[in-house]
This record gives sequence, structure tokens and C-alpha cells, in this order.
Amino acid sequence: MLKGKMDLNSFVVKAPQNIAIENIPLPEIGDRDVLVRVAACGICGTDRHIYHGHYPANYPVVIGHEFSGRVERAGREVREVTPGDKVSIDPNILCGTCSSCREGHPNLCRNMVALGVDLNGGLSPYCRVPVSQIYKLPPEADLADASLVEPLSCVLHGVDLLGVKAGTRVVIFGGGFIGQLMAQIIRLQGAARVVLVDPNEDKRAIARSLGFDTINSRDLRQLESLAEFDASVDCAGAGKVLQQCIEITRPGGKILMFAAYGQGQEVAVTPYDIFRKQLQLIGSFTYPDTQSRAIRLLTSGKIVLDPLVTRIRLDEVVSLFTGERKLIKGVVVFP
Amino acid sequence: MLKGKMDLNSFVVKAPQNIAIENIPLPEIGDRDVLVRVAACGICGTDRHIYHGHYPANYPVVIGHEFSGRVERAGREVREVTPGDKVSIDPNILCGTCSSCREGHPNLCRNMVALGVDLNGGLSPYCRVPVSQIYKLPPEADLADASLVEPLSCVLHGVDLLGVKAGTRVVIFGGGFIGQLMAQIIRLQGAARVVLVDPNEDKRAIARSLGFDTINSRDLRQLESLAEFDASVDCAGAGKVLQQCIEITRPGGKILMFAAYGQGQEVAVTPYDIFRKQLQLIGSFTYPDTQSRAIRLLTSGKIVLDPLVTRIRLDEVVSLFTGERKLIKGVVVFP
Amino acid sequence: MLKGKMDLNSFVVKAPQNIAIENIPLPEIGDRDVLVRVAACGICGTDRHIYHGHYPANYPVVIGHEFSGRVERAGREVREVTPGDKVSIDPNILCGTCSSCREGHPNLCRNMVALGVDLNGGLSPYCRVPVSQIYKLPPEADLADASLVEPLSCVLHGVDLLGVKAGTRVVIFGGGFIGQLMAQIIRLQGAARVVLVDPNEDKRAIARSLGFDTINSRDLRQLESLAEFDASVDCAGAGKVLQQCIEITRPGGKILMFAAYGQGQEVAVTPYDIFRKQLQLIGSFTYPDTQSRAIRLLTSGKIVLDPLVTRIRLDEVVSLFTGERKLIKGVVVFP
Amino acid sequence: MLKGKMDLNSFVVKAPQNIAIENIPLPEIGDRDVLVRVAACGICGTDRHIYHGHYPANYPVVIGHEFSGRVERAGREVREVTPGDKVSIDPNILCGTCSSCREGHPNLCRNMVALGVDLNGGLSPYCRVPVSQIYKLPPEADLADASLVEPLSCVLHGVDLLGVKAGTRVVIFGGGFIGQLMAQIIRLQGAARVVLVDPNEDKRAIARSLGFDTINSRDLRQLESLAEFDASVDCAGAGKVLQQCIEITRPGGKILMFAAYGQGQEVAVTPYDIFRKQLQLIGSFTYPDTQSRAIRLLTSGKIVLDPLVTRIRLDEVVSLFTGERKLIKGVVVFP
Ligand SMILES: NC(=O)c1ccc[n+]([C@@H]2O[C@H](COP(=O)([O-])OP(=O)(O)OC[C@H]3O[C@@H](n4cnc5c(N)ncnc54)[C@H](OP(=O)(O)O)[C@@H]3O)[C@@H](O)[C@H]2O)c1
Ligand SMILES: NC(=O)c1ccc[n+]([C@@H]2O[C@H](COP(=O)([O-])OP(=O)(O)OC[C@H]3O[C@@H](n4cnc5c(N)ncnc54)[C@H](OP(=O)(O)O)[C@@H]3O)[C@@H](O)[C@H]2O)c1
Ligand SMILES: NC(=O)c1ccc[n+]([C@@H]2O[C@H](COP(=O)([O-])OP(=O)(O)OC[C@H]3O[C@@H](n4cnc5c(N)ncnc54)[C@H](OP(=O)(O)O)[C@@H]3O)[C@@H](O)[C@H]2O)c1
Ligand SMILES: NC(=O)c1ccc[n+]([C@@H]2O[C@H](COP(=O)([O-])OP(=O)(O)OC[C@H]3O[C@@H](n4cnc5c(N)ncnc54)[C@H](OP(=O)(O)O)[C@@H]3O)[C@@H](O)[C@H]2O)c1
Ligand SMILES: [Zn+2]
Ligand SMILES: [Zn+2]
Ligand SMILES: [Zn+2]
Ligand SMILES: [Zn+2]
Repeated sequence: MLKGKMDLNSFVVKAPQNIAIENIPLPEIGDRDVLVRVAACGICGTDRHIYHGHYPANYPVVIGHEFSGRVERAGREVREVTPGDKVSIDPNILCGTCSSCREGHPNLCRNMVALGVDLNGGLSPYCRVPVSQIYKLPPEADLADASLVEPLSCVLHGVDLLGVKAGTRVVIFGGGFIGQLMAQIIRLQGAARVVLVDPNEDKRAIARSLGFDTINSRDLRQLESLAEFDASVDCAGAGKVLQQCIEITRPGGKILMFAAYGQGQEVAVTPYDIFRKQLQLIGSFTYPDTQSRAIRLLTSGKIVLDPLVTRIRLDEVVSLFTGERKLIKGVVVFP
Repeated sequence: MLKGKMDLNSFVVKAPQNIAIENIPLPEIGDRDVLVRVAACGICGTDRHIYHGHYPANYPVVIGHEFSGRVERAGREVREVTPGDKVSIDPNILCGTCSSCREGHPNLCRNMVALGVDLNGGLSPYCRVPVSQIYKLPPEADLADASLVEPLSCVLHGVDLLGVKAGTRVVIFGGGFIGQLMAQIIRLQGAARVVLVDPNEDKRAIARSLGFDTINSRDLRQLESLAEFDASVDCAGAGKVLQQCIEITRPGGKILMFAAYGQGQEVAVTPYDIFRKQLQLIGSFTYPDTQSRAIRLLTSGKIVLDPLVTRIRLDEVVSLFTGERKLIKGVVVFP
Repeated sequence: MLKGKMDLNSFVVKAPQNIAIENIPLPEIGDRDVLVRVAACGICGTDRHIYHGHYPANYPVVIGHEFSGRVERAGREVREVTPGDKVSIDPNILCGTCSSCREGHPNLCRNMVALGVDLNGGLSPYCRVPVSQIYKLPPEADLADASLVEPLSCVLHGVDLLGVKAGTRVVIFGGGFIGQLMAQIIRLQGAARVVLVDPNEDKRAIARSLGFDTINSRDLRQLESLAEFDASVDCAGAGKVLQQCIEITRPGGKILMFAAYGQGQEVAVTPYDIFRKQLQLIGSFTYPDTQSRAIRLLTSGKIVLDPLVTRIRLDEVVSLFTGERKLIKGVVVFP
Repeated sequence: MLKGKMDLNSFVVKAPQNIAIENIPLPEIGDRDVLVRVAACGICGTDRHIYHGHYPANYPVVIGHEFSGRVERAGREVREVTPGDKVSIDPNILCGTCSSCREGHPNLCRNMVALGVDLNGGLSPYCRVPVSQIYKLPPEADLADASLVEPLSCVLHGVDLLGVKAGTRVVIFGGGFIGQLMAQIIRLQGAARVVLVDPNEDKRAIARSLGFDTINSRDLRQLESLAEFDASVDCAGAGKVLQQCIEITRPGGKILMFAAYGQGQEVAVTPYDIFRKQLQLIGSFTYPDTQSRAIRLLTSGKIVLDPLVTRIRLDEVVSLFTGERKLIKGVVVFP
């Protein structure tokens, strides 16, 4: 496989707004590493932030942290997988010795190092991955879908924190890839009613085609008529969504703060309502323990990805960063 | 409506194994009571135990605690419903002043008084019900289905205590009405795999027709091959089920003890496994707060009841107690 | 006891800023009511708000909702207490049929009626109290202390929601009566370090005398040096406290929003931090199930009240509302 | 320090019931290892089981998994500690890639490797410890006490799972070292009443001297008079304790199954009571995340160890295994 002249064309961010698609040397692997032949890699907002220099990265770096592939080669002390195995990657490498790692919050590791951010990632035909980050997939898994195990794991973690019960009613703000996945998982957890709010009719139409009720976020009258939701989820990170969540949620209800707002950005809330309605506002950041369940759900066919995903080529990636092109979710599929 | 000569034929247990179907006077109601015209009433194991004298009841009593109907008349201080409203009943009247009521466990009230056990219940064309026990149904609700809101509320409470997450694998022992409902609710909560274990092929066939995997509880080899379930549920209350749950459940998993074993009956468990696998065994008894969600789920059409339910006449009820007839769930529908 | 001419001098708020201390008729009681001879009644911020017309009350009304006393007379159907029993009162009467009552949040009842707000309360020698609101005290209980069972029950509920574990570090903003109680309960739950922040040196001195570390809320340099608290609690409801809590709390930590801000008042927060540190902001309002534990703790002597409480006469109450006099906690003790 | 001829006398279990106190070579360390100069090492039941061949160990092995010391030398890639630092050890090395590690239960790792069991442990002047297992202590820490951080961490984890709230009442069976620590931690969490049950008067006397109520486990009449505990804890692992817990615990209460019973040993329980009282039985095994809090509590002086601990020499250890000598807790202090 790895013989002869290889195409190792990779998407390298050399510095903010300076990228190249270029050959990189085949990575060498250590005893507990795996060389992954990348099958597919999703593009997300973090990649765009790295491109623009708004997210701290270790330039130059091959970006891409949502990826799947096959084991090409396994280090000497790797017992967990063997060459040919389909795998999905957890990009976030934790330190194991900081206070977050040791007090029950490994996903909040103070010394997190991430593939595709600090180390070369998945927008390359090959990637070196420590075996601690490798999850074996069942043989029947679709590798393009499996590139989206990472965002799905994030969503599952948020839903774990939220604690959705069968028969409840949930509203979700934001119909991007994350909001759409969130809606699906929350319905999967038995919510009796799931409403998706987004300004964009195309996204709402997709949600409706999947059976969700939708509301235009610009239609304030309709928004204000919402009330008594057991939970609301902010997957928008924009406008007055947080305060709208506070207003729409019933006494005793919960609000999942899933979206990344700008660092330092201030948003107004009314603490009286949080107190009087005894609400809980729950932050969620990446995930510590949901990737196996994400894999199980993806391969069970219970998640609909097709209307959300567009397959793109490596040389099309940059158009998503510059804003020339807008996709709910772009996935680079390697040949 | 209530004029002229009325048929108030009711199913009265006069003493253990001594029943009569006889006219009772139309109940008078107090200021905070509702007179319910019963539409349908389910029969469950507790009714059989009352018939046999194995469950403490206030003989003579009209049994039946799983029922629905319409408001016939409302007491002077009732604001919550008006005549004609479809309603479902919560049969368990709590005291509000015992230590269970006051410390977060009203369903474990020390002075519980139940319709159909201590007070006349639903196997009668009319029943007096305190408004505290009345849940208004949406107009489109099917009243026969709605008689089963009570057992569904119990199951929801058990599942709340268990805490099922999307993508997990759960095994359920017992394919009676409760086990079959449990399987549906647990799948509704997003379980990726749900297996039902029962000795009876007819019950397993129903479960399979609803999409569940099944195992014959007598097929020990197959049972022993089970492992690594995130949770297991005892809806059988028989044989070695509890210990089988302990063995089948993965480290860190949970066991829902939903079934009523005989009072004082001893069952062997291996505490080492509970300790070493850090299992949690979770008892569940009736419910404090799930009836509204049960109503929402039933009327949403997400629960399949038809293959489980047989409509019967009042004079057929006793045959379920004597064992002449066996049904997964019998429901008396009033004309 | 109740013979002859009685002094039924009561503190009546007739309309906002219009009060009278006047004789009221001895209340008549129903079958499930108790006539309580009030022993002591605490004054809190809600009373001041009622006086000023900033809290909806049913004028004219005898205020006072933090009170204790002895059973003078019990209604015909009262079995729970007998004359002479010492009792503490839960002032919040819930409806039992609203969606909050029925879905696990009785403290958030939509139809709450409160003694001392909607019905005559404890600033009177006698008060009619439904038995549902009566908690029997052990004979050795101090009745002046027992008037403070209500705020202690609130604090316990907040701490239940927060979930304090032994060995954690907690910061509390606000050294009023509530903040000082909060500090004591959180230390009682095993917190290894408890810091109290307040602008007022007298209050800080009391806290220090009880063994707490304190910080002047005006000393921004010291405040900014705080970090890595497992939890923080807002018992101040003022200034930038909420955002300070967000900054001081460690990743994975929790913030208890216990204070009542002004209705509609907006406060700025940084959602990025809540997301990135995966914080939880937890509202808390009154309590559903902590009063028995509050009684047990108060009578166990584990709570220090003396330095916090000032005994006052009925005719001194109004000076607390006008601001003439400032007390951490005033308690009217009836002769 | 490490120059010249060293005394590396270590306690080696060569095979079941075959031990030697002998010199071992100074361990070599890898880049992420720390060479610890052991200060103190506690002896526990697991050590005795290894000695007797009842617990799977990697003979020959230096036992001892409860230990503390100072950093003698640190591997090239160790940033977390430097020579001279006082440290406490987490003996359980997890794999990071098994399903327990990856799904939220690292303490239930399927491939756990333990210092003192599978690798040489703390009954030796020096021990090689991966930095992932090293917790830095504050300079003022007492190193003999700090050897007991491991059992304290286990107890904290059990109490975390149990969820003790201020004002509750808890009964603990077993007054060995673990039961006595459990009693202290549960009181520290605010329990209003803590009762310790043990057959041995000496142990009960110690508990009483620390302020606990005690009961002789052989005094069945007194035991049967117990009731309505919010929680009970099995730190005995003997007799009928588990069923006694079930009987003594109030409806809605919890039972912590902390003790290790014999593998395969069957014990009888009454499932009816677990169902009817809606109890929760909670297994607890080692700990995933409590060691930092254990250190904080130990160094805060909130835990009383002196009456429980006896300092012994290396050559006295075996007498604890043969039963010649009985101690609540023996700790070997190295010179
Ligand atoms: N917690 C975690 O671990 C985690 C993991 C992944 C992602 N995230 C975060 O989740 C958020 C969503 O991710 P995404 O990839 O789906 O982003 P996205 O594609 O930008 O989606 C956000 C959506 O919200 C819509 N929106 C804007 N204003 C709105 C409003 N007022 N009401 C309702 N919707 C509104 C946007 O519409 P327009 O496009 O028309 O503006 C867009 O459709 C991001 O903040 C991301 O950083 C969090
Ligand atoms: N927690 C609560 O609030 C609550 C509420 C309602 C009901 N319950 C309890 O839930 C349990 C189930 O109720 P149900 O109405 O469904 O009772 P059911 O009709 O008697 O169902 C029990 C089922 O378990 C089967 N079974 C017997 N031995 C088994 C084994 N070894 N393995 C697997 N299955 C086995 C039975 O088969 P056969 O019929 O062939 O024996 C039967 O199909 C009862 O104990 C009931 O009291 C609890
Ligand atoms: N959740 C519930 O169920 C519940 C129950 C009871 C009470 N509460 C609420 O709890 C809060 C506290 O009650 P309380 O009776 O103790 O009120 P309080 O006597 O007004 O105490 C508030 C304290 O916070 C201090 N403070 C003001 N600004 C501060 C700042 N920036 N940082 C730190 N401290 C600051 C105040 O000092 P100055 O006096 O000098 O301004 C005062 O000492 C109130 O909002 C009350 O409504 C809630
Ligand atoms: N979950 C975990 O992570 C973890 C961690 C450490 C230890 N443990 C386990 O915790 C348990 C206690 O450890 P330990 O070191 O304290 O053991 P221990 O010294 O053997 O203590 C057990 C105590 O229970 C007493 N006891 C015996 N029968 C009793 C009865 N019927 N009622 C009440 N007490 C009774 C014993 O008395 P006699 O000595 O007179 O028999 C002894 O004092 C052990 O099973 C241990 O394996 C668990
Ligand atoms: Zn870390
Ligand atoms: Zn009760
Ligand atoms: Zn209500
Ligand atoms: Zn592992």
C-alpha cells in the first residue's frame, strides 16, 4: 500500500489566512501510535477559526479533527487494533495529571493537545494518532459517516448533562449541523415535542423533512408564543437566544448552553427568572465518555446525516473558510 | 344524563374470593371531588391479589385502579375540570404530612389510600374521585388507551430512576404487560439495543413484531451468552432473574428492580459482583410525577398498545383472577 | 388559655407603606386546620418588599412567614399534632394540581398561597395554619430558633441542588443572614474551605468569629486573586456578583443562584466561559422537602444563630422596613 | 542520597504464604516515571489476601499499595513534580482504552494494573511510580498520615455515590479502619446522626470516643429497634448485614455496598422490600477522582487517624497476615 510515490497532499494552515495544499512526509509512529489512512474528514467552525487566527493553533499544522479511516500500521505496543481495522478518532489528547483530569472532568483538561489544532490532523491522507485516541469501528461502518462521530459525541455529552426524559418538550435554537444533530438525539431520547428555531428557511425545511416543528427566529411573535418547554438548547450562540431560552423554559426546566459565543462577549440575562423559575443553565464542552455510544448510534442507522452533509474535495475546503461557500456540513472524502 | 333508572353494575370484592356484580348507589361528591363516568378500566396483578386476599384491601370494595372516563359532575370548588372533560385518574391518594410525603418521596406515603383498594374504584360506571387525582386529557385522547396511563406512569418513573441514555443496551426480563411497556419506553429513550426475555413464545412473538430481540428465559445457554448490558430490568419477579441481571450487567451498570416479589421472599445475590462491578440496584414503586408525561406519550401515538390489550366485559373479569383465562392485559370498556 | 380578654395585637399591612398594630379577631379553624399560638416570627426581605408594595400581597394582611409556636387548638380531623405541641410552619401552601406540583416541582407551584402574604401570617399572637403546613418539633426545641426553620429549609434546598462534597472549596457572596447560614451549611457538608465575601466589616467579623475566611467585596484585587473554587454561591444579588462567580469557579464547577435580583433586571454574563468551563448555573427557590432536616439540624445545635439574630418587639418591626434600623436578622418573640 | 550501599529491604511475596524481606535492586525509571523514596505504607485486607493466595497477584511481588513518600528522582519528561516533593500514590494504573475507561468508569478498567499487586509496591524503601499515579502533597503534609490517602479516597468515592445530605441519619456496619473512616466522612458531610455497628467493644469504644453512637452487632434486640435511617453502609461484609441494611433503611433511602464479600458468595435479600421501599443498593469500588479531595481533607486536620493507626516495622507485617496480631490499621514507617 505505502509503496512507490505517494500522494500525501494535505491541508496545511501555515499561518492565519495562509494555507497550502502540499505533500507532507509520511508520519513516523511510536510504539503506542497508530498510522491512520484517513477516509473522511469533516470541517467545522473551529477549523474556520484556526484559518482566521481566532483560535490558538500550532502553525503550521494540518487541520481537521473530525475524521475516520483505516489502520495502516500499528506501533509495537498496540494491541487494541490491527491493520485494516476501520477506526474513528477522538482528537482531544488529555494529560491525565491536571486537576480537571483527576477530578472527574477529563474533557476540561488544562493541558489538552488536539489533533488538527496542536498536532497534524485529518485533512491529509495519513495521520499519526496515539492509540488512546483510536476507537475501533464495526466492519460494516460507513467511513464517511464515521468522520462525524466527534460532533455526535459532543452532542451526546450535552444531552447527558441535560438529562432528557421521554415525554418532555424541548426547543433548540440554531439549525446548523450541531442543532440538527441535537434535535435528532433529543427526539431519540424520547422527547414528545422538538421544535427547531433558525433564521434560515433552507435549514428549517430540512428539519421539517425530518419530522421536526420549526420556527423562524426572526418571527418574534411566534417565538414569544413559545412557553413551558421542559428544556431549551442554545446551538446558535447569537442574538438574544440565551435570554429567549430563559423565557421559554418552564419552572424547574433546564437550558443547555452548547454554543460557543465569542470569548469575552457579554450577554444580558435576567437572574430573577433563573431564581424564581429555579432554572438550571448547563454548559457543555466536548466530551469525556460518549464516543462509543456515538459509534453505536451512527452504525445503528438511527441518525440521518445525508440531508446535512455535502462531500467536498480538499481544494474546496478553503471556500468554506472565506465564506464563498456555505454548507451545513462539508466532509472531505479521500480517495 | 343521570336521570331515570341507572345501571350502576359494579365489580365488588366483598371478601377474599367472594365477588358480586351489583348495583351500587351513585356516589355523592364533596366540594373538591369529581364524579367520573368511567370509560375503561384495566385489570392488573394487584386486582388479582385483592381478589385472593393477598393484598390488604378495605372489603367490600369496588376494585379497579387503572381507569379513565369523563367528568360527569364537579364539586363546588373544582376549577381544574368541567363536565364532559376526558380524564385519567391517579389512584393513589397521599396524605401530605408523613415523612415520605415531606421528604421528597410522596409515592412512598406511609398513609396512602388508593381508589380501587381502600375506596371504591373504576370497575363501576361511576366513581367519586378527589380532584387532586384527576388529570385532564386532551380532547382527542382515546379513553380505552387512557385507562392505561397509570401503569405507563409507573414504567416512566422506573425509567427515570434508571436514567437510560441514547446508545445504550438494555435487557428486560418479563414479557408481561409491564415488561412490554418497559421495552417500548426504554427504546423510546434511545437505547440502541433492547432485548426482552420471557418463557412464553406468544409474548416473545409480540415483542419481535414490535422490533425487539427476544430470548427464551428457559434457554440458559443463550442467557449465559448475554453480557455487557448497560442496564437490566426485572419485570418478572421470578426465578433467578435478579442474579441473572447482576451477571449480565456491565461494570458501572444499573439494575432496575421493578417487579413485586412475594413479601418476605428471599432471593440469593452475590454482593461481591455488585461491589466489584460497582452496580446499582434500583427499586421503583408506583410514581410521584410522571402521569402528565405518560398522557403526552400515549396521545402522541408513540406507544403501541393494541397487540397487548384485550377488551373484556365486567362479567369476564373474574376469569382472569381464577386463572381460567390469561391475558397480557384485559381492559373493561364501559358502554 | 384563650379565656377572658385577649391581646391579639397583630402587625397588619393595610396597603403599601400603611401599617397598623391592631387587635384582630381570634381566627376560626376548619377540620384540617391548627390554631397556632405564635412564639416567634422572623422578619425577612420579602416582608420589607410587601411593606413597600414591591411584592404582590393580599392587603390588608398580617405579614410574617417565618414562625414557630405551640398548637393551641386542632381541627376535628387533625391527627398529626395535639394542643401543646411545639411546631414550626411551612408558609407556602401549594395547590397539588398545577403542572409544577404534578411534575416534581411543588415548590414552584403556579397557584402558591402563602401565610404572611396571601393569608394572615405569624406577626400575631395566633395564626390559623392548615395541618399540611405544620411540622411538629421535638419537645426540647428552642422556639425562637425554630422560627428560622423556613430560611434554613431554603438554604438546605439550595445546597441540595448544588451538591456539595466533602473536601471541596466554596465561595459565598453576601454576608446577610442567608449568606451566613449558607456558609454554615456548606461547611457542615464537608467543604474544606469556605470563603465569605461581603462589603460590610461587621458581617465579615461575625463570619470570621465563626471560623470562616472573609474578603471585602470592594477589595477587587483580592477578589480577582480568587480562583479554582469548586462552587460559588450568590447570596448577594447585587453588583457584578454573578459574573464574579463565573470567573472564580473552576472548570466543571457549579454556581448557586440563590439571591433574588430585581424582576426584569438585566445582568451581563459571558456565555463563552460557561461553555468553555462547562459550568452549571443553578437557580434555587424556596424548598419542597427540606424542612424536617432543617428542624433536625437546628435542634442538634449544629447551627450557630446567636450572633446573627436580634430579638425585637412588634412595634420595632417597621423600623427594619424604613431602613431606620439594620439587623442581620430580627425576630419578634411573643410573650 | 542514593550513594554507597543502600538498604533496600523490601517485603516480597514470592508465592502464596511464602514471603521474604530482602534487598531488591534500585528500580530504574522511564521518562514519565518517578522514583519515590517511600515514607510510609499502610497494610490492608488486600495485602493479606495476596499473602494467602486469595487475590490474583503477579508473584514474586513487593506488596503495599497504600503509600506516600518523597520524589527521589524524576524521569526526563516529568514536569509535575521535582525531587524532594512530598507525594501520595494512586496505585491503580488504568489502560485508557477499554470500555470502562472510555465510558465514564475508569476505576472499573478491565486491564487495571496495580502497584503492590501486579508491579512492585510500597513495602520497600524505593518504588518506581508512573507520574500518572503521583499526587503532589502540600509541604506541611504528614507523610505517615498521607499513606492513608488511598483508603480515604475509596471512602470518599463511596460517599459521593451515596450522596449524603446535611441533616440525614446514617448507620454504618463494621468498625474496622474503613467503617471508622466512613463514619467520619459521613459526619463531615453533615449527617445529623451517625451510628456505628460492630461486634468488637474496643472498636466501638474508639468510635464513641470520636463522638459516634455505637451498637453491638450481636445485640439483635437493639439492632431490630433501628429504623428509618436515610442511608446505611455495609463496611463489614459479613453475616446478615446486607439484609439488616435493607430493613433499617427508610423508604426512599440508600444502601452503600462498600464491603468485599467472598467471590461467588451468596447472600439472601428480600427484593420485595427494595421494590416497596424504593431503595437503592449502590456498589462502590476503589475510586476514579477523589484523591485530591482526600489529600485536602487529610491535611486540613478534619480526619482523626491517631486512635486507628499503629506504626509497625517491616518485619512485623507478616504477623497481621497470619492473624497473630490484629490491628485496626498497621502502617510501616520507613526510617
Ligand atoms: N459544546 C460543544 O462541545 C460543541 C461542539 C461543537 C460545536 N459547538 C458549538 O455549537 C454551535 C453550533 O455549531 P454549528 O456548527 O451548528 O454552527 P452554525 O452552522 O453556525 O449554526 C448556527 C445556526 O444558528 C443560527 N442562528 C443564528 N442566529 C440565530 C437565532 N437568533 N436564533 C436561532 N438560530 C440562530 C444560524 O443561522 P445563520 O447561519 O443564518 O446565522 C445557524 O444556522 C457553535 O457555537 C459551535 O461552536 C459546541
Ligand atoms: N414498580 C411498580 O410500580 C410496578 C407497577 C406495576 C407492576 N409492577 C410489577 O411488575 C411486574 C410485572 O408485571 P406484569 O403485569 O407484566 O406481570 P406478568 O404479566 O405476571 O408478567 C411477568 C412475566 O414474566 C415472565 N417470567 C416468569 N419467569 C421469568 C423468567 N425467569 N425470566 C423472564 N421472564 C419470566 C412471566 O411468564 P409466565 O407468565 O409464563 O410466568 C410473565 O410473562 C409484577 O411483579 C408487578 O407487580 C410494578
Ligand atoms: N432562594 C431562596 O429560596 C431564598 C430564600 C431567602 C432569601 N433569598 C435571597 O437571598 C438573598 C440574601 O438574603 P439576605 O436576607 O441575606 O439579604 P441581605 O441581608 O440583603 O444580604 C445581602 C448581603 O449581600 C451584601 N452585598 C451587597 N453587594 C455585595 C457584593 N458585591 N458582594 C458581596 N456581597 C454583597 C450586602 O451588603 P450590604 O447590606 O452592605 O449591601 C448584604 O450583606 C436575597 O436576595 C434574598 O431574597 C433567597
Ligand atoms: N469499596 C472499596 O473501594 C473498598 C476499599 C477498601 C476496603 N473495602 C472493603 O471494606 C470492608 C471493610 O474494610 P476494613 O479494612 O475495615 O475491614 P475489617 O477490618 O475486617 O473490618 C470489618 C469490621 O466489620 C466487623 N463485623 C463483622 N461482622 C459484623 C456484623 N455482623 N455487623 C457489624 N460489623 C461486623 C468486623 O468485626 P470482627 O473483626 O470482630 O469480625 C470488623 O470490625 C472490607 O470488606 C474491605 O474489603 C472496600
Ligand atoms: Zn489534564
Ligand atoms: Zn404521606
Ligand atoms: Zn401547584
Ligand atoms: Zn481500562
